[in-house]
Amino acid sequence: MRRRIQTPKEYYAALLICCLVLTITSILHSPKVSSTKAPFITTIPTRKTFNMSSEEKPTVPDLLNRSKEDIIAYLGGIYEHSSWVAEQFHESLQTQNSTAAPKTVSELFRAMKEIVNNASHESKLELLKNHPDLCEKIERLSNLTEASRVEQSRAGLGSLTSDERAKFTSLNNAYKAKFGFPFILAVRNATKYTVLSSIEGRVGNMVEAEFVAALGQVHKIAWMRLLAGVRIDNPAGFLTCHVLDTANGCPAANMRIHLKRLSPPESAGFIAEYKTNSDGRLPSGPALKGTDFQVGVYEWTFFVGDYFASKNNELTGTPFLDEVPIRFGIDDPEEHYHVPLLVSPWSFSTYRGS
Amino acid sequence: MRRRIQTPKEYYAALLICCLVLTITSILHSPKVSSTKAPFITTIPTRKTFNMSSEEKPTVPDLLNRSKEDIIAYLGGIYEHSSWVAEQFHESLQTQNSTAAPKTVSELFRAMKEIVNNASHESKLELLKNHPDLCEKIERLSNLTEASRVEQSRAGLGSLTSDERAKFTSLNNAYKAKFGFPFILAVRNATKYTVLSSIEGRVGNMVEAEFVAALGQVHKIAWMRLLAGVRIDNPAGFLTCHVLDTANGCPAANMRIHLKRLSPPESAGFIAEYKTNSDGRLPSGPALKGTDFQVGVYEWTFFVGDYFASKNNELTGTPFLDEVPIRFGIDDPEEHYHVPLLVSPWSFSTYRGS
Amino acid sequence: MRRRIQTPKEYYAALLICCLVLTITSILHSPKVSSTKAPFITTIPTRKTFNMSSEEKPTVPDLLNRSKEDIIAYLGGIYEHSSWVAEQFHESLQTQNSTAAPKTVSELFRAMKEIVNNASHESKLELLKNHPDLCEKIERLSNLTEASRVEQSRAGLGSLTSDERAKFTSLNNAYKAKFGFPFILAVRNATKYTVLSSIEGRVGNMVEAEFVAALGQVHKIAWMRLLAGVRIDNPAGFLTCHVLDTANGCPAANMRIHLKRLSPPESAGFIAEYKTNSDGRLPSGPALKGTDFQVGVYEWTFFVGDYFASKNNELTGTPFLDEVPIRFGIDDPEEHYHVPLLVSPWSFSTYRGS
Amino acid sequence: MRRRIQTPKEYYAALLICCLVLTITSILHSPKVSSTKAPFITTIPTRKTFNMSSEEKPTVPDLLNRSKEDIIAYLGGIYEHSSWVAEQFHESLQTQNSTAAPKTVSELFRAMKEIVNNASHESKLELLKNHPDLCEKIERLSNLTEASRVEQSRAGLGSLTSDERAKFTSLNNAYKAKFGFPFILAVRNATKYTVLSSIEGRVGNMVEAEFVAALGQVHKIAWMRLLAGVRIDNPAGFLTCHVLDTANGCPAANMRIHLKRLSPPESAGFIAEYKTNSDGRLPSGPALKGTDFQVGVYEWTFFVGDYFASKNNELTGTPFLDEVPIRFGIDDPEEHYHVPLLVSPWSFSTYRGS
Repeated sequence: MRRRIQTPKEYYAALLICCLVLTITSILHSPKVSSTKAPFITTIPTRKTFNMSSEEKPTVPDLLNRSKEDIIAYLGGIYEHSSWVAEQFHESLQTQNSTAAPKTVSELFRAMKEIVNNASHESKLELLKNHPDLCEKIERLSNLTEASRVEQSRAGLGSLTSDERAKFTSLNNAYKAKFGFPFILAVRNATKYTVLSSIEGRVGNMVEAEFVAALGQVHKIAWMRLLAGVRIDNPAGFLTCHVLDTANGCPAANMRIHLKRLSPPESAGFIAEYKTNSDGRLPSGPALKGTDFQVGVYEWTFFVGDYFASKNNELTGTPFLDEVPIRFGIDDPEEHYHVPLLVSPWSFSTYRGS
Repeated sequence: MRRRIQTPKEYYAALLICCLVLTITSILHSPKVSSTKAPFITTIPTRKTFNMSSEEKPTVPDLLNRSKEDIIAYLGGIYEHSSWVAEQFHESLQTQNSTAAPKTVSELFRAMKEIVNNASHESKLELLKNHPDLCEKIERLSNLTEASRVEQSRAGLGSLTSDERAKFTSLNNAYKAKFGFPFILAVRNATKYTVLSSIEGRVGNMVEAEFVAALGQVHKIAWMRLLAGVRIDNPAGFLTCHVLDTANGCPAANMRIHLKRLSPPESAGFIAEYKTNSDGRLPSGPALKGTDFQVGVYEWTFFVGDYFASKNNELTGTPFLDEVPIRFGIDDPEEHYHVPLLVSPWSFSTYRGS
Repeated sequence: MRRRIQTPKEYYAALLICCLVLTITSILHSPKVSSTKAPFITTIPTRKTFNMSSEEKPTVPDLLNRSKEDIIAYLGGIYEHSSWVAEQFHESLQTQNSTAAPKTVSELFRAMKEIVNNASHESKLELLKNHPDLCEKIERLSNLTEASRVEQSRAGLGSLTSDERAKFTSLNNAYKAKFGFPFILAVRNATKYTVLSSIEGRVGNMVEAEFVAALGQVHKIAWMRLLAGVRIDNPAGFLTCHVLDTANGCPAANMRIHLKRLSPPESAGFIAEYKTNSDGRLPSGPALKGTDFQVGVYEWTFFVGDYFASKNNELTGTPFLDEVPIRFGIDDPEEHYHVPLLVSPWSFSTYRGS
Repeated sequence: MRRRIQTPKEYYAALLICCLVLTITSILHSPKVSSTKAPFITTIPTRKTFNMSSEEKPTVPDLLNRSKEDIIAYLGGIYEHSSWVAEQFHESLQTQNSTAAPKTVSELFRAMKEIVNNASHESKLELLKNHPDLCEKIERLSNLTEASRVEQSRAGLGSLTSDERAKFTSLNNAYKAKFGFPFILAVRNATKYTVLSSIEGRVGNMVEAEFVAALGQVHKIAWMRLLAGVRIDNPAGFLTCHVLDTANGCPAANMRIHLKRLSPPESAGFIAEYKTNSDGRLPSGPALKGTDFQVGVYEWTFFVGDYFASKNNELTGTPFLDEVPIRFGIDDPEEHYHVPLLVSPWSFSTYRGS
């Protein structure tokens, strides 16, 4: 019988191995928009990708009911080589009313983030310095924590051309010389383009501004690690939609809509077809809620051409807008995502609504 | 040696047969968004789809230099069973200055459309009545012109469920009883959903309003027939782009963009990668011009996530906007299509610009 | 003691006289954007503008409880010289279930409009022909109904320059010759620019299309006459707002908003100040509802500069957006008007929402 | 004969006195949106507001041709009590190629800003600490430089209610305790609402983030001081417009537009009327350029109702959109401001374009 993972260290090691495998697999199998395109699909690990099944992960309340040692061991790697954050967090749990303890992954994250933000400048600088240098060869990973290797393996740095590598090395050296800490980028769903674009933009920042930006990346990494490490049984978040016809000044009734999940790959696929009601909304409430509301990348397809064919708006033979895809990411399992469409036969817009 | 097509009648017959084949083929092979989705890909016929090669088709000036009989034979089927339109058009060519003769497919279309619009009400009503009844079984096509069978075969009426068929029959009967002419829909790139949505919306129109709407469909059919029947050597139209960063109030410089053609299927595929210049525009002029500027369906992909990673805007772990697709149709080979993106990390919009 | 108005004929006569006075007064006193600008303020008559006070007007249920003669007398002038509409409407009241009788001004309007739309083509053409010719001198009003004189007096045709007059006369003659009925424009809140712009655009229409457009104007006039003729005790309509920050992807909380009524002039003025709640909405429900929800022109002012000063978005010395006015009209007392703002420091949009 | 101002110190003193007078005057005379509203009009000083006439101010090249002492004296107060910035700037002038010397106010500002950004953390902190405490009574201005008193007098802190004053004092104390430097806000065109909104939002920032935000305010103040202190003979900036009809997918041709300047008050007023050409643009190039292109607040009025009356779009009696105002600020005399309108009868949007 296969032995299950027991400790957080083993957990993160498994995470690393599986994600490396996944990366290669997804590069081999993912549909390419073009040959130069690296996969955008996120690798938030789930049951299929490593041995610690979703059921074995603790929920946030489960985790916070454990012993001091367990909590610190489990959360100690969320901030790179900085288990003092987990320690202070555990301490704060003791001194506050138990009703104030975090109940969701978002609340847990905010509590830990707040500890970092309120720490001394020196502690924060130390935290930044604890991060591995992205520029060092991907094969020499010895001084990384396991968790950071997971993110790094996805950066596609292996696919850098020699020109790109030279440019990146030069920018990376300039960066370290100017700021005194390594370039940090939350890279789980990024490509080499993201990395180069980001370092190019950020190397010009004022020192104090880049300190803030780098810490923002550290928090983003912490958030992604937390999301991967806990089980979310009944997320409060949900996804809604609304279609307004800006040519006729009314809700777009009877418009067909499809929803697909594009990532994570193991749960990607068609989700459902909807037809808007007389108020331009989905007739049976949220498109996603509860366990269906997963962090990932989604895409609506709005059948705009069919809709306007039922109105008297003049359309061209090949309509300017026919099937309108709207691709968006869901990052926080506890929030409401309202992703509407404002559309005429000649224009459309969308936004993160509420 | 294979005998080439000689007469317009043969041409349209070939067009019909090839499109039916294409329809079945594309249904079998096209990637499906979902099992209930019919293909959205247009079937504007080209070299690969029927025997009359693009080179054999006349340009508009070529055509207008032919004999009266040839011109009328070639254009007589553009408006269904109404060669009087072609005849009057030919007459107008004789009486006007030769410099006023149409030089492009758009000008030719406008001239013929104007003749229809200025005709008597009775002539227009007759034109509407000349159209086949969409509701009659697709196999009983005997009283159709060949050209109309081509459009009709794409409506996917064969895929109607029995409920849908009953609904459609009932709507179609109500339509004919109310308006006195058959339901007409320019269906080359439509599905059964388009047909049902359209007849449901239009059956409620006031009689005079529906007359105008139906004639609009007739013009659209004429336009698509013209486009399929002439060669366009050097279209004046072109495609441009512009990206504005509405979070920072500046052009979005150094944003990667991909352009793909989604249809017609025989020329579908990746076209090019661009990187915006300091004004947020494509660095080497139009993305498409000349013979590359074809009627069809296109898709930009804007790498918005990479762009904002180079600014100091705070992004989430899974960004709300990362790769942003914008799908749009080009219908007129003589026009400028400006399809820009206005984007913040949390919203975007596009429109047909100029 | 002052004698009150008793009959609808007297009512419309009073309406005419008062509006003419109001027109001159408002031209003399209204604040001008520029010397060439005619007043945009609507003249929906109220207590102050003519002798029939709002209290004396019947509500829709009041009116429909009256005798056949009263109903037809009261509604007979809604469609110009076409009391048959009112007669058929009264007939329909008798034959249908009493619960189906219109209860609101919108329902009453829809019922009468439907009667017109379903009438024979000849009846509709007659209705169009019954309208006075806008081009005839404003002083020779002898063959107009009183109600149409009211709308016409507001067109500002008296302010046409001789060039404009010549252009208008020529367009008007071309219009009548082409279409066989006079040019009709619902002009209560229009200026000479509206009139010229409209006739220039519409004279090029296909005959059948212009018939539909002209009938649309007739319905609009009917709607405005109905609104002026009945009392609306407790309208179902209401006004709401929502502000979304598209730079930061969240509701714009704690944004100050002002609401003003710009017209009708007798109730114009500052209405209220609001501060958005954490969801970016007005904290105590609709901004306008019940008797405060009046047909007219309104303006939000959003204090966008102050809002972004509380975020860390970089603003310029003179911000691109500081106080953002959004001016909009409310036309239907029975509908929900949702007029939101989507805003970044560098862009904004609004729309009629739901 | 009136003695002219000779030294920068006198200049700033004059600026202070005149602006205080202007503040009171503008409070007395400016049109109020409501009684609670403080004036939004900026007070960029011009000929009318203080004795140093625009002609007497140096252009940037004039200024940089002066002696070292003059340059440092003139620019020494741009950054509060920190003439080292002007000194280092002068030094950089000596060491670089003369062609690299700033020629415009924007280039001069960027050069000085760069010196500050690249200075040591201690120097920057000192600069922040040099700023006066907004909370101290406005009458006790003894330790302020003259220039900062000018900005401060406009904050409308005199109009704080006692509740607001208590809240502000408490926030201000919390701010100083947390960050170790006084709350700084570029307040020339701000009200007490701006001040309260800003301090409430910023007091919650992480220490390092607020350092960056405060320095941003310092740069903004420097920019406004520079703008007030130099003459701009022939600014490169200009203002353009473009109107797109998103309901019909075309440029909005023949739309009337008005342009007004709302501030500075001494040059406020109606500027011009335009009518868009067939591409939806102003027919004779930029609306503002050269000396007409002044920093200030502007407002377009788009006559959208008249435009759509010429199309066949159905409008309501009181149109949802009729006269559409778009209010925007111009901050940089060297930049292109493109302020377009995308509009349907039921929606519109605008943005800072390029």
